Amino acid sequence: MELKDIKSPDDIRNMSLEQLTDLAAQIRSALLSKLSKHGGHIGPNLGMVEAIIAMHYVFDTPRDQIVFDVSHQSYTHKMLTGRAQAFIDEEHYDDVTGYTNPDESPYDLFTIGHTSTSVSLATGLAKARDLKQGDWNVIAVIGDGSLSGGEAFEGLDNGAVLHSNFIVIVNDNDMSIAENHGGLYADLHLLRTTKGKADNNYFRSLGYAYRFVEKGNDLESLIRAFDDVKDYPNPVVVHIVTEKGHGYAPAVADKEHFHWGMPFNIETGQPIHADDEPDFSDFTYDILTDLKDKGSDIAVITAGTPTVSGFTADRRRLWGSRFIDVGIAEEQAAAMASGLAKNGVRPFWGVYSSFVQRAYDQISQDIAINKSPVVIAVFGASVFGMNDVTHLGWFDQSLLANIPNVVMLAPADKAEYESMVKWALSQTTYPVIIRVPGGPLKNLNIEVDEDYQDINTYKVIRSGHDIAIIAAGHMLGTALAAADVLEKEGMRPTVINPRYLSGIDEELLSSLSPDHRAVLTVEDALLDGGVGQKIASFYADRPMMVRNLGLPKVFLDRYDAHEVAMDAHLTVEGIVEQARNVFK
Amino acid sequence: MELKDIKSPDDIRNMSLEQLTDLAAQIRSALLSKLSKHGGHIGPNLGMVEAIIAMHYVFDTPRDQIVFDVSHQSYTHKMLTGRAQAFIDEEHYDDVTGYTNPDESPYDLFTIGHTSTSVSLATGLAKARDLKQGDWNVIAVIGDGSLSGGEAFEGLDNGAVLHSNFIVIVNDNDMSIAENHGGLYADLHLLRTTKGKADNNYFRSLGYAYRFVEKGNDLESLIRAFDDVKDYPNPVVVHIVTEKGHGYAPAVADKEHFHWGMPFNIETGQPIHADDEPDFSDFTYDILTDLKDKGSDIAVITAGTPTVSGFTADRRRLWGSRFIDVGIAEEQAAAMASGLAKNGVRPFWGVYSSFVQRAYDQISQDIAINKSPVVIAVFGASVFGMNDVTHLGWFDQSLLANIPNVVMLAPADKAEYESMVKWALSQTTYPVIIRVPGGPLKNLNIEVDEDYQDINTYKVIRSGHDIAIIAAGHMLGTALAAADVLEKEGMRPTVINPRYLSGIDEELLSSLSPDHRAVLTVEDALLDGGVGQKIASFYADRPMMVRNLGLPKVFLDRYDAHEVAMDAHLTVEGIVEQARNVFK
Repeated sequence: MELKDIKSPDDIRNMSLEQLTDLAAQIRSALLSKLSKHGGHIGPNLGMVEAIIAMHYVFDTPRDQIVFDVSHQSYTHKMLTGRAQAFIDEEHYDDVTGYTNPDESPYDLFTIGHTSTSVSLATGLAKARDLKQGDWNVIAVIGDGSLSGGEAFEGLDNGAVLHSNFIVIVNDNDMSIAENHGGLYADLHLLRTTKGKADNNYFRSLGYAYRFVEKGNDLESLIRAFDDVKDYPNPVVVHIVTEKGHGYAPAVADKEHFHWGMPFNIETGQPIHADDEPDFSDFTYDILTDLKDKGSDIAVITAGTPTVSGFTADRRRLWGSRFIDVGIAEEQAAAMASGLAKNGVRPFWGVYSSFVQRAYDQISQDIAINKSPVVIAVFGASVFGMNDVTHLGWFDQSLLANIPNVVMLAPADKAEYESMVKWALSQTTYPVIIRVPGGPLKNLNIEVDEDYQDINTYKVIRSGHDIAIIAAGHMLGTALAAADVLEKEGMRPTVINPRYLSGIDEELLSSLSPDHRAVLTVEDALLDGGVGQKIASFYADRPMMVRNLGLPKVFLDRYDAHEVAMDAHLTVEGIVEQARNVFK
Repeated sequence: MELKDIKSPDDIRNMSLEQLTDLAAQIRSALLSKLSKHGGHIGPNLGMVEAIIAMHYVFDTPRDQIVFDVSHQSYTHKMLTGRAQAFIDEEHYDDVTGYTNPDESPYDLFTIGHTSTSVSLATGLAKARDLKQGDWNVIAVIGDGSLSGGEAFEGLDNGAVLHSNFIVIVNDNDMSIAENHGGLYADLHLLRTTKGKADNNYFRSLGYAYRFVEKGNDLESLIRAFDDVKDYPNPVVVHIVTEKGHGYAPAVADKEHFHWGMPFNIETGQPIHADDEPDFSDFTYDILTDLKDKGSDIAVITAGTPTVSGFTADRRRLWGSRFIDVGIAEEQAAAMASGLAKNGVRPFWGVYSSFVQRAYDQISQDIAINKSPVVIAVFGASVFGMNDVTHLGWFDQSLLANIPNVVMLAPADKAEYESMVKWALSQTTYPVIIRVPGGPLKNLNIEVDEDYQDINTYKVIRSGHDIAIIAAGHMLGTALAAADVLEKEGMRPTVINPRYLSGIDEELLSSLSPDHRAVLTVEDALLDGGVGQKIASFYADRPMMVRNLGLPKVFLDRYDAHEVAMDAHLTVEGIVEQARNVFK
């Protein structure tokens, strides 16, 4: 049977092992073809082809319910559940998202994109089934890398006491996005080397029955194991050993690089559009390395995404013990940073906007209340960042800037970013969060300070009258370009770099009053809770007109960034238009 | 030696076992005397007297560093480190906080009040020590109840790979705040019954050396165990079995009730000021039970604090499997709720304002993106809630109301709360978060709707002119009282109940324009990111004066609630004064 003719898992349930093996080959070929042209998660999908076929072969989906962790390995699942065309026909590649999505299919239970949630979500499904006295199987799939997240532990701890059917398939490919870190991984290694027979067994210690599958890319082994646990009346872990990138030599050889990728040459594995431009990640590495080489007592932390701060594998080796990967465990990253700071080391944590929210409580309690001088750099914090609904980059600012004691900075360009990072790591008064500018590395050629101790002081970049444009972070460049246009029309706007997102410069705002009638605020961030609304509140009982530009409170999925920016007036044209009509 | 003469742990390091035993008796007596008069954490402190004496006896504090989880068990530690007077002399009871506090003593490393953080914080201390090539001991103390939190797992997982001295003292009293829940606790039970000899060992599975102490309230056993692990060059867990409430029969007999308490009669254990007034917790239980009895397919969730929703031990038994305690694991509570909702059960999660922030990412991703109709009731969300810096109740609103898809409601009184809870559990369109009113159960005798589907519709409670007061939640009652005063002065303010915290009623706000020149917003919540700033932003380019009243972005500790409310004008007098002078 051809992959393209598969409409539902029913179509594979009568297949022979030989037919299933052929199907796996077709799926892997479709995956490689699409991924090499389109980009996406490569290694996680290649490694799970056989396991997902075996799951749908054995379990009675969609009656039996499967939850995929992160769901970045769910492409085979999509192909088997009526969506093969989106992997075969180039014109339909974008018919499906890169994650499970209930809007696409009843086989997809949740929209998922963050790590370590599948077991917890599945405990709810199973508990509801039990309350309704149902008898279907509930299956959570989770990778070894995701087990490092606290939510995965909380889910396992609770799943163990369901006293009913609850199947956790641990997809162990001995990799996270990068390599794994943590004591748990020594145990997984021990279990692999003893074929599941070691006494120290994390899963058994939590109360699970346990089944080990040595050949996690072998259909026959997988089907046998899943058949054994189907309808099992108690919580059970099936620990399958898979190979990340299985079936594609370049992906097996360089697992980190092929976790996710842009289009590549399928023969060589080389990216089609070479990305040699230095970016804020590389630049961050350079700044930090320079500081370390000059003797700064610095430690760099990541929660499983080392390259966000520019730390590729070779660079991690160069840094040795001063580079700390805590695994996918943002709470640990924040709290450990506070402990490091307490004992005089200068911690720098680089993290994506979408993931920093996993540590809100720790940033508030472990860092901010304790005034620990931790430095957090938030990357991808922009409408121009990742555009999957689970990975949006515009909620970090109002989340973090409104925590007391935190100084949150918005560098406008490369030079200001460098200066702010250096200052943040040189002082011990404040926890400092830096919102790394979106877009390419560039300089606006504005004057940049070395010291930011005098908090909440805005800076006038261009002096004018009637209207003041306060533009945060990389929007400053857009605002300056808009000011150029407006000047040609005879307006003379003042342009201000607020620099601080965690407070307003009341003195400067007050001083605008005689010469200005309107203030336009511009933020590449959620409007609610942002700087603009603070400024609107400040002026609210004074005769100053204020208009706030920023991003709306909506979850958008796979949006067109330019379109969203236009709608929010976060473009040169948008700012020009708003400045023109604010007095009308 | 008298307890009052102990200035530092040096004073106990030469004591004989007999002298230490006498000291323990003095400490326990001081604890009981202070706690019975002053209130505080009872069981946790009584259970740890001997262990903390033994720690300071064996370890070279403050060179050796101890981090206490939650730090609600640290009273003995405070007595031994120069602060005994605050436990002996009634006039000095309030010289110390109820938690560790670096402002009080160099023996206190962090201000801590949330659960499950000690191991993570200590990994940072230990890593910094290793980078600095120090050789002191780093010790994390954590209770069995706290082990259910994901951050504790993340800390243990990372602590295991330090390859250096790292001592985790697990204080196992077989209790959380209430009873424990989760597979881990079966393992702890097994370890207790086998005296640490069972093969299934959670700590060993993560890579720790392990030492079991059966008699965790016996100084000799503890000293021997701590002596053994002192300077141990690898991560080690010391599992000590203690008795919560040890030495005080009423606290041993009713461990849950004596976890934390107000002043009590030391002879009988009965509270001195009987608290028989029904409150929003009891009322919540009544509403939910009524719904369940009428056939609603409801499940009530708690993350280790069952009584917040009124679920005392006897009531939990009545509810059976429809009451779910996930342990102290807020991430699990949120994600499990989403899973329950997916399969048609109606989940209700009651949680304190200070703790709901531990699940921001899960509320955003697992619930809100998925539009799961989960109902979350946030208690203690007020300046009049808990007043320790680690337990503030005014940050929840801007945190949660600014998550897309979430409907956040602010009932003004008892009747509106009941109505909102019932509506929230009857619909399946929105995740609903209800900010339970602060203060006592009372009715304002306002008209209350049954249906809140028409989101972001404000309600005019009293119609007037010139000035409109928009007062959220229980501030509506304060605003109505202020309006009464203003009416006597000849003003006729409009009073509006916004009801929704997650959006504004643009139509109603626009309609205020002809007859009103000013709007006063009143919130018992952080100003930044609140409703007031949204309203200020809405009116910012229109000729309407707006003044926002709400709470400042500061961490206050053990503050006087009335004073803070006065400073923020959140009183009848404050609102009257602001309304009077807004036009000046």
